[in-house]
Amino acid sequence: MNIHGIPTRCIRPVPGAMAVDIIDQTELPQRYRERRLVTLEEVARAIRTMQVRGAPLIGATAAYGVALAMVRDNGDPALDAALATLAATRPTAVNLHWALARMERCLRPLAPERRIESAWQEAGAIAEEDVAQNRALGQHGLALLRNLRPADRPLEIMTHCNAGWLATVDQGTALAPVYAAFDAGWPIHVWVSETRPRNQGLLTAWELAQHGVPHTVIADNAAGLLLAQGRVDGAIVGADRIAANGDVANKVGTYLKALAAREAGVPFYVAAPRSTVDFACPSGAHIPIEERHGDELRLVTGLDNQGHRQRLRQLDNDCQVANPAFDVTPHGLVQALITERGSCPASREGLLALYPEENHEPF
Amino acid sequence: MNIHGIPTRCIRPVPGAMAVDIIDQTELPQRYRERRLVTLEEVARAIRTMQVRGAPLIGATAAYGVALAMVRDNGDPALDAALATLAATRPTAVNLHWALARMERCLRPLAPERRIESAWQEAGAIAEEDVAQNRALGQHGLALLRNLRPADRPLEIMTHCNAGWLATVDQGTALAPVYAAFDAGWPIHVWVSETRPRNQGLLTAWELAQHGVPHTVIADNAAGLLLAQGRVDGAIVGADRIAANGDVANKVGTYLKALAAREAGVPFYVAAPRSTVDFACPSGAHIPIEERHGDELRLVTGLDNQGHRQRLRQLDNDCQVANPAFDVTPHGLVQALITERGSCPASREGLLALYPEENHEPF
Repeated sequence: MNIHGIPTRCIRPVPGAMAVDIIDQTELPQRYRERRLVTLEEVARAIRTMQVRGAPLIGATAAYGVALAMVRDNGDPALDAALATLAATRPTAVNLHWALARMERCLRPLAPERRIESAWQEAGAIAEEDVAQNRALGQHGLALLRNLRPADRPLEIMTHCNAGWLATVDQGTALAPVYAAFDAGWPIHVWVSETRPRNQGLLTAWELAQHGVPHTVIADNAAGLLLAQGRVDGAIVGADRIAANGDVANKVGTYLKALAAREAGVPFYVAAPRSTVDFACPSGAHIPIEERHGDELRLVTGLDNQGHRQRLRQLDNDCQVANPAFDVTPHGLVQALITERGSCPASREGLLALYPEENHEPF
Repeated sequence: MNIHGIPTRCIRPVPGAMAVDIIDQTELPQRYRERRLVTLEEVARAIRTMQVRGAPLIGATAAYGVALAMVRDNGDPALDAALATLAATRPTAVNLHWALARMERCLRPLAPERRIESAWQEAGAIAEEDVAQNRALGQHGLALLRNLRPADRPLEIMTHCNAGWLATVDQGTALAPVYAAFDAGWPIHVWVSETRPRNQGLLTAWELAQHGVPHTVIADNAAGLLLAQGRVDGAIVGADRIAANGDVANKVGTYLKALAAREAGVPFYVAAPRSTVDFACPSGAHIPIEERHGDELRLVTGLDNQGHRQRLRQLDNDCQVANPAFDVTPHGLVQALITERGSCPASREGLLALYPEENHEPF
C-alpha cells in the first residue's frame, strides 16, 4: 500500500544486505519510522514489543528471523534455537508457529551451507504468498459486502483492532475487502474502535487516512450503541487463530462486538488467510490467551478541569491489573470466514470444504 | 466514606459560608483535591467538566447550585435562569432534572426573601436522602448477592464506570452492596473496567482501595472474556436514567457487558435510587444520549518500543471522532433493579410495585 504516496510493504528484505526493514508500529500514528533488523534477537524483540504486530505479519517477520539466524551461524547449529526463541515471543497468533514450522520443513533436510539461501527464499515466499492471499481474500470479502450495500448512503463497516495492511505484509485481512470496495468506487465509511489497551485502532485510522477511506474513531465501549442504533451494516475483523471448529481468537473485545452484532442482526465476518487456521486446535477453549504486562493499562489520559486540556493519570503500581490480549468468539456468532480460497461457514465442515487437503488431520 | 481515613461526603455545604465543597474528580486518582464552589456558574462548570459526575451526585450538586443562585440574586429573579443554566449542563442523567424540579416545586411558591433559606434546606434534604437511600439500596443489593456467594472462594463482582460513593453524595449505588458485603466480612473481589474514554474505572479503583476492597483493573474490552471464562458471579452497574419500562441508560459500554453477562448466565443488576427513574420516559429509545467532545478520545497512551516506557500518542485533530457517553441496556438484559425500596424486575410492573404512587403517570 502507499505511505505518503509511496508504495511499500510492512516488511522488506534489504537489497544487498542480510537485513530486513520494518515499520515501527509503536511509533505510529505520531511518527512514521522504519527500523532495520539484523539479528534474530532484534526480530524477537520487535515481535515481543509489538513493533511488528498482526498475526500474518508476525508470521512473515518470524520467517525472516529464522533467515537472519541462519546468516549469523552460517546455517548451523542455529535452527532449533532460532525456532525456539521466535516461538516464545507471543503465544496466541498461530501464524507464528505456522511460519516457523514451514521454515523448519524447508531447512531441516538441508546441509547447513545450503540453509542461508533457502531460508531467505522461503521467508520471501511466505511474505509474497501473504500479499497474494490477502488480495484474493479482499475480493471474496467484496462479494459478501455487495449484499450489504445500502441504496442511499455509504456502506457502514465496523472493525476492531488493526487487521489492515499494517497487520500483514500488505493488503490487510479485515480491511482488504474495505480497500477493494473503496477502490471500486463504493461510498464506504469505517467505524474504528480505539482498541485498548494498545490502541491499535489508531493504526487503523492512520492507514485508512493514508488511503483516503472515510472513517470515525470511537471508544471500544461505543460499539454496542452504534450497532443497536442501526448505524452499522456489517462488521469485519481479523483473527489470530481460528480453531478447527471455527471458533476465533482475536484481539480482546472482538467477542463483545460479535455479541452486539448478533443482537442487532448485523453480519459479523472474520477475514484471515490459511496461515491463521489451526486445524490441530479443536476449539477456542484450547487456544492460549496471551496475558500482557499490566503497564499497558496503568497510564491513561484524561481531560483536566479546563475541559479540553489533556493530561495523564496514572494508576498506582500496586493497583492490580489483568491484561488478557485476546478473547474467543464462538463460531456461532460468526456469519462467515473469509479466506483466500473464498468464504465459508465458521465450522469444521466449512473449513474442510475450502481446505480438503486438511481432512487427514485428526479432530 | 473515608478518604485517607477521614470520613467525608462528595459534596458538603461549608459551615458559616454560602458555598459548597466538592472533590475534584478530574484530579483523581493522581491527586485528592477539594474545590469550593460559590457561584451558579462554578456549579454548572463543575458538572459540565465532570469535576462532579455520577447521576445522583449531579442531582445533589445542581440542587446546591440553585441555592447558590438564590444567594446571589437575593432570591429573585434568579430561579428560572438558574434552573435553565443547570438543566443545560448534561442531558442524560435524569437525576439532574429530578433535583431541579424538586427545587422548583419548593421555591416557586415562596416569596423571594424566603427562598434562600429554603433552597439550602431543600438541597441539604436531597443530599441527605441520597445517602439514606443508597444505604438502604446497599442492603437490598446485599440480599441479592447472598444467592451468588460461592462456598470456596471470594465473590467475584463486575462493575462498569464509577457508581461508587464518588458518584453519589455518599455510599454509592452499584458499589453500595459491595461495600455492605465487604463490611459484613464476605471475601469479595471486584473487576473494574477502565471505562474509556474518561477512565472513571480509575475512580472506582481508587475508592475501593480507600476502603480496602480487593479489585483488579481491566480494559473494557476484557469484560467479555472474563464473563465467558466463568470468572464473574454477578455484575452490578449504576444508571443515569431508567425508563418507565425498565430500560437503562448508563455509561457507554454497559450494554456490551449486559450482553456478555446474559451469554454467560451471570445476573446483571442495575442499582439506582428513585431519582434515577424517569416515569415520564416510556422506553430507552426516548432517552437523550449525550455526545461529548472528541478530544476525550484524541490523546491516548502507548508503550514505546522499549516495552514499558509509557508515552503519548495523539490522533490528528482532523481525525473524525464519535463520542457518545451513554448507551441503553434493554430491560430484558437486566436481572433486577435494586432501589432504596427493594429489588424489582426491570419492567413497568416491577417499578410500579415499588412506587405505586407513580401509577397516575400516563404511559
